[in-house]
Amino acid sequence: MATIKDVAKEAGVSIATTSRVINNAPHTSEKAIVAVKKAMETLGYRPNSNARALVSKTSNTIGVLVNDVSAPFFGSMVKAIDTVANEQGKQVLIGNGYHDATKEKNAIDLLINSRCESLVVHSKGLSNDVLIKLADEVPGMVLINRFIPEISSRCIALDNYKGSYLATEHLIRQGHQHIGYICSSHEIDDAYDRKAGYLQALEDNNIKVKEEYIEYGEPDEEGGEQAVINLIAKNTPITAIATYNDYMAAGCMALLQENGIRIPEDMSVIGFDDGHIARYIYPRLTTIRYPIQIMANQAVNLSLKLASRDTEEQTEHKLFIPILVRRSSVGCISSK
Amino acid sequence: MATIKDVAKEAGVSIATTSRVINNAPHTSEKAIVAVKKAMETLGYRPNSNARALVSKTSNTIGVLVNDVSAPFFGSMVKAIDTVANEQGKQVLIGNGYHDATKEKNAIDLLINSRCESLVVHSKGLSNDVLIKLADEVPGMVLINRFIPEISSRCIALDNYKGSYLATEHLIRQGHQHIGYICSSHEIDDAYDRKAGYLQALEDNNIKVKEEYIEYGEPDEEGGEQAVINLIAKNTPITAIATYNDYMAAGCMALLQENGIRIPEDMSVIGFDDGHIARYIYPRLTTIRYPIQIMANQAVNLSLKLASRDTEEQTEHKLFIPILVRRSSVGCISSK
Repeated sequence: MATIKDVAKEAGVSIATTSRVINNAPHTSEKAIVAVKKAMETLGYRPNSNARALVSKTSNTIGVLVNDVSAPFFGSMVKAIDTVANEQGKQVLIGNGYHDATKEKNAIDLLINSRCESLVVHSKGLSNDVLIKLADEVPGMVLINRFIPEISSRCIALDNYKGSYLATEHLIRQGHQHIGYICSSHEIDDAYDRKAGYLQALEDNNIKVKEEYIEYGEPDEEGGEQAVINLIAKNTPITAIATYNDYMAAGCMALLQENGIRIPEDMSVIGFDDGHIARYIYPRLTTIRYPIQIMANQAVNLSLKLASRDTEEQTEHKLFIPILVRRSSVGCISSK
Repeated sequence: MATIKDVAKEAGVSIATTSRVINNAPHTSEKAIVAVKKAMETLGYRPNSNARALVSKTSNTIGVLVNDVSAPFFGSMVKAIDTVANEQGKQVLIGNGYHDATKEKNAIDLLINSRCESLVVHSKGLSNDVLIKLADEVPGMVLINRFIPEISSRCIALDNYKGSYLATEHLIRQGHQHIGYICSSHEIDDAYDRKAGYLQALEDNNIKVKEEYIEYGEPDEEGGEQAVINLIAKNTPITAIATYNDYMAAGCMALLQENGIRIPEDMSVIGFDDGHIARYIYPRLTTIRYPIQIMANQAVNLSLKLASRDTEEQTEHKLFIPILVRRSSVGCISSK
């Protein structure tokens, strides 16, 4: 493989000049740039990004920690980050943490050891203390979908509580009084906060909370299916179900329809996330919009700014607000 | 930040020994390993993977080129690769090519420049010639979902033609004679091959091909929806629709159902891929199984073997065979 010496010789310039061209350094003559680029092409020379990273002490890579890249929610998040990365000539390195403290820590360590100066981290397994320590070590680390007061300017989060409150309130306004809830079985803040929003909306509307109206499952279609099987088996008078996310809602709806329970005539269902699936199940899912693309975009831009220390202003912390998206999976009840 | 010198001093061993421990070199004493690891922890020392990559001339990173990581199909592919990477203590670097020649080439170049010795490439935009040249340059490059005769041992591909033939034949066996086809508008082999399978199945069963039964769209839910709008508008006597993939099928089904066309009573629909969505739309989708996880697993293992030159045997090329998965979206026609 050709070396930088070969390129310099072929281009008829010094190694120092060649290096300047390769590294896009300022104050390089146009003539040298043309000659070096031509020589690189002729010789099939590939600059070694590891060597460049070593010299500059950084890599051109943005590290991203997700729960599981195969879940469409995280696919959307990664894509939004990759779009920004592309615009800035950077690459994205991805780690899966699977909501597990050890796996999350290992994945973040790998990203840091790969000299990712920018990190966008979706962590649910690690404690606040560990994340605060990491944020201290890595100035370009930003948390997404998590709020830690001590490092609030590094957090891009959503008001999960409010989203679920909105969803439940929407069902109540359509006349529903017996409202089930399908909750994620993962022991993470999102699950607690969304359930809390459901409970508070009931309470604020003088509807008694019934424990048997709540079921748990993995936060995917299969989990939703299993949870609704358990819910239906209890033969409760529920006429509507709020769910932890769209995937659980989809699994729940498929199972209900297969059992001749019509949506929304016999049962209303509301999702959370407004992922791709929400628009393409039938009936189209009424849900709560989680603006993950916008949030991911903001997170990666903040992370890049922090990493390059070119942000002066203290970013003011604010929670993103979810909104209701009405489609066709929620119906009215006239007589209560 | 602590340097290797600090670690050596703290551990009371030489820098050379410290380096051996960090790089997991053989013939290092247990005592030195313990001392160095303890010193690393005490000082918060992080070995620089760029430096290590420079010394070993390789990185510990597997490069993956996909069309678009936010599409669930590619999410599944990346996850399968990430699982193997994790088992082997490697990381995954992801590039999006968006089925575009220039973007694919840029993304592959970035991965190569990052010293990924293993590459799993899902390329649809680049020509055979370009890919053959790249495969020649990078011994650990494997193509997934593409077959190029000259480098057949480096290709892990699916018989798309056969899959679509199977799907169409299944509809014919249920008595359907007027079968529409919703095709991807992307000009890639998968689209041509799947359409060819549909056409051949009709021909082999003495059913006349009608051009107006075929519509095109983006290979996603929205594309399927748009294509079926165009198909229905033509007021043809079709009773069944074969589709390019599950996402197009889902979009198509939502639109039909919204218009009071029952599935499968009034219209049968069959998908392709057997992605997650297939099991959770209603009615559950009869489809063709694309074993992407198994194929991705095989591709990454082959790539790692090729990169480390420890494969002696010439891998025999074989196409993966898709199979029919029967669910509830296809019905019978008794009278033709």
